[in-house]
Amino acid sequence: MKRVWLNTKLIKGKLPMSSHDRGMTLGDGLFETLAVRDGVALWRFEHTERMRAAADATGIPFPETEIENGIDALSYKAKGYHVLRLTLTRGEGGRGLAGEIKKPTLIGTLDPFDGQLRFQPVKLITSAIRRNLHSPGSHMKTLSYMDNVLAAREAAAADADDALMLNSAGRVACSTVANIFAEKDGALITPALAEGILPGVMRAAVIRAAKQRGIQVKEKQVKPADAASADGFFLTNSLRFIRPVAMLDGKRYGPRSKIVDELSRALLNAETEQLVLS
Amino acid sequence: MKRVWLNTKLIKGKLPMSSHDRGMTLGDGLFETLAVRDGVALWRFEHTERMRAAADATGIPFPETEIENGIDALSYKAKGYHVLRLTLTRGEGGRGLAGEIKKPTLIGTLDPFDGQLRFQPVKLITSAIRRNLHSPGSHMKTLSYMDNVLAAREAAAADADDALMLNSAGRVACSTVANIFAEKDGALITPALAEGILPGVMRAAVIRAAKQRGIQVKEKQVKPADAASADGFFLTNSLRFIRPVAMLDGKRYGPRSKIVDELSRALLNAETEQLVLS
Repeated sequence: MKRVWLNTKLIKGKLPMSSHDRGMTLGDGLFETLAVRDGVALWRFEHTERMRAAADATGIPFPETEIENGIDALSYKAKGYHVLRLTLTRGEGGRGLAGEIKKPTLIGTLDPFDGQLRFQPVKLITSAIRRNLHSPGSHMKTLSYMDNVLAAREAAAADADDALMLNSAGRVACSTVANIFAEKDGALITPALAEGILPGVMRAAVIRAAKQRGIQVKEKQVKPADAASADGFFLTNSLRFIRPVAMLDGKRYGPRSKIVDELSRALLNAETEQLVLS
Repeated sequence: MKRVWLNTKLIKGKLPMSSHDRGMTLGDGLFETLAVRDGVALWRFEHTERMRAAADATGIPFPETEIENGIDALSYKAKGYHVLRLTLTRGEGGRGLAGEIKKPTLIGTLDPFDGQLRFQPVKLITSAIRRNLHSPGSHMKTLSYMDNVLAAREAAAADADDALMLNSAGRVACSTVANIFAEKDGALITPALAEGILPGVMRAAVIRAAKQRGIQVKEKQVKPADAASADGFFLTNSLRFIRPVAMLDGKRYGPRSKIVDELSRALLNAETEQLVLS
């Protein structure tokens, strides 16, 4: 039976949850998904720091030691690729929305992940559901993911792999599970952080790798019209690294570009470096 | 020990939850809160029908019999006032956002509620967090409530009882837990359903009661400037019925109006009618 990390230890079987845990009743919590390879949680520091920042912003206590222990306990014996998910809820609360709660709930799970899914091309549609520029939640990986769920369902119904989401101002934001980059004349363009997107760990790694290689990266507002003139697109996230967009709203894009190849190698190198140094 | 309804029966103690239940991992579910008085769940049909409509819209199966049995089992012996909460999640799902799941998770809880909290005046501030006009979730009571949680925390930090939320177009929408009505020259004005609000059960009851009494109700777009010229405001929700707004962003409003008194009596009559007819 699968083991689950609950607060301070691994348990087996179902989670004994309070019926008033706000993660379950109000989507009042945060999560992170980390790729694990051969016992090493990749970009671990970046993920835990992002969760810490979101915890501070939402007033959820951040149980640092429990989180580090949970990642260790779940990952250290995992061979091959896995996905480790951390869920941190505000904890058990009484009725009412604002309540201060001292004891959050931490859940950690580990599931096998097919490493071959990295770098695979994707087919996108543009969703009718937009990211809210007037919501702090648009910038954090909160448990309140219904918009993304519904946009992903819209994509699946259209036989696409994922949905591109615009923000409430009608500009390009991200997909339901990934950041997006456009390629144009050898440079990269990606929506700025203020555009209602998550500060993706892989987004940051890609920007770093591109700049080190002299590839220009512009973080800016991206209108759909700008996007239409791009040479191509790719998605980034922590599990699937880089995925070229093969089709967007029925328009086909060419084979994997040189830049995507170069950045993919850079990410694999960064992965290897983490395995060696861990 | 408190009893909780789980799917088909009452259980005691903690809920045995899957660590992959999408209600807990993605806010992927719905809820309803019903006032219960002396064993009767008030406006029961309206609440279950609203949940059914949202379940249809989000592709979550709607376990009608289990829901009816759960309401019966939790409420029939409850003396005085209580709050009954139904939570319906999409159920246990694998990784990925779009997945189809046949077996949802139903949770029902019952907690005491102080009936004196009904009709109490409230102090509001306007939140910086806005309701997303481009999200189906703005029209449904989903578990993805983080925006409302954060707006409520903003209100609490400002020593207010609740926060008024505008929509992404900058027009008046609702509070974090209630619909809002303005009074102007003896008529009522309330944001139209398309304005990114929940179709409140008490909102509908108030509109019905007002029209029966010859009070005009305009459902329309409400700009903050229109609101500023109103004679007064009140909030409506299923637990607290009608609450006059005593202060909004530091501006004081007068004592309970005749219209609020009349509508409050109408709602108490509707409550009594449900108790008698049940």
